[in-house]
Amino acid sequence: MIILKIGGSILTNKDSAESEVDDASLKRIASEIRASLDNSDKELIIVHGAGSFGHPPAKEYKIGEEFDESEYPEKRIGFCKTQNAVKKLNMLICESFIDEGLPVVAIPASSFMTATDKRITEGNLDYFKKYLNKGFIPVVYGDVVLDTKLEICVISGDQLIQYLAINLNADTVILGTDVDGVYNKNPKTHDDAIFFERFSSLEDLDTLEGTTNVDVTGGMVGKIKELLYLADLGIESKIINAETKNNIFKVLENKEVKGTIISRGN
Amino acid sequence: MIILKIGGSILTNKDSAESEVDDASLKRIASEIRASLDNSDKELIIVHGAGSFGHPPAKEYKIGEEFDESEYPEKRIGFCKTQNAVKKLNMLICESFIDEGLPVVAIPASSFMTATDKRITEGNLDYFKKYLNKGFIPVVYGDVVLDTKLEICVISGDQLIQYLAINLNADTVILGTDVDGVYNKNPKTHDDAIFFERFSSLEDLDTLEGTTNVDVTGGMVGKIKELLYLADLGIESKIINAETKNNIFKVLENKEVKGTIISRGN
Repeated sequence: MIILKIGGSILTNKDSAESEVDDASLKRIASEIRASLDNSDKELIIVHGAGSFGHPPAKEYKIGEEFDESEYPEKRIGFCKTQNAVKKLNMLICESFIDEGLPVVAIPASSFMTATDKRITEGNLDYFKKYLNKGFIPVVYGDVVLDTKLEICVISGDQLIQYLAINLNADTVILGTDVDGVYNKNPKTHDDAIFFERFSSLEDLDTLEGTTNVDVTGGMVGKIKELLYLADLGIESKIINAETKNNIFKVLENKEVKGTIISRGN
Repeated sequence: MIILKIGGSILTNKDSAESEVDDASLKRIASEIRASLDNSDKELIIVHGAGSFGHPPAKEYKIGEEFDESEYPEKRIGFCKTQNAVKKLNMLICESFIDEGLPVVAIPASSFMTATDKRITEGNLDYFKKYLNKGFIPVVYGDVVLDTKLEICVISGDQLIQYLAINLNADTVILGTDVDGVYNKNPKTHDDAIFFERFSSLEDLDTLEGTTNVDVTGGMVGKIKELLYLADLGIESKIINAETKNNIFKVLENKEVKGTIISRGN
């Protein structure tokens, strides 16, 4: 089984004031997935980020931070606004993917998962198996969930990949981002950025965190931490550039694509 | 605990060519619910229908009818289109309700329920309890689900009410429709239509089915059948007109509202 994450930044239009999906990007990615499935049947789960839809309300209402009982009514509204914003993004993504012939079925994390201190601690994946068995493509995305310690929190698409890969024993984990993989600096602003073909330990991570441009990498450190947990369990993953035409198709076809492999092996 | 169903016909704009929600109606209903919750805390679950969003794709792809294995790819797409259409309706409803200060959290049936021959046979309601315990208002709606006999089917909001009411042991079940309750004929076209204050047996139903206008009642027979199951288990329900201003508020406040009570008692 393949778990394919598509980063929110690729799917949403960052240049727009309003939250908007990037229709051209969505259509291209969907058609690449479709082309690969037409070549041969594959069990596929799609995970997508919250992009420009989920982050603003989550940030405004500080979802995931400790709060006083008196703030609960306001926090609830923040939770609901965030859930609804990511639902809207998911609806638009599914619309585009269905138009390209992909049988995508959404299974929102908020309807079956619970966290403890921002980590998923409960989430029965039976419905993923049921839909996969019937030839559907389950879709899950960055969402809000109840938290036994913090009451409510945000679960990222990256954490979802890890949870799904472990509990469904995925064969392949692919992260489509807007960069070619992991660099020690932001390659868009630094010509001397060094590219990592492979990432295999927290020591490599130290190298990365030591750079001054760590924030500019757009949450790359967080992604790698999730993927190193997976690597510990023997599940290798690959970060690729989903904005490069045909990369998604090629990686699904097991063809050579530039990217960073996260594994514990050599 | 109160289960409040709001009919799809009240929430969507039937006169429009495109699927549209009825914003004014949504805002009014949300504000009536909010006013009642401001009066006193209540455990509330909202169920809504699929309205003009879900019916067209479900009908086009004949979801719920037997089909040949060769038709599966097409049926899957129909399933996905229907799921996404009702998700869109739910997103718009939640948007409006959140704007009025209602902490609504969607829990789609497709993410945790299975049917057998169009009847719900599996659906763990733990997440309804969890969200209720934290002061949220869970929202569920007419949706598509996997079916162990027919592969896929549609689950109506009316069937969901029944399932939730039984399994969560609801105190009060209210159906907001676009008529005052049950008549033996369509009251909009028949001046001599007789109104039922109370409905308590399948024999009453025969009276209704004997009329020539049974289809015009807009699925009222189906609703009553679901509610008579509930009545058998001692759970009384009431059909009211949600288009009449303040009816939702009054019924939530346990005040007198014209309507039809479905019960086995006298």
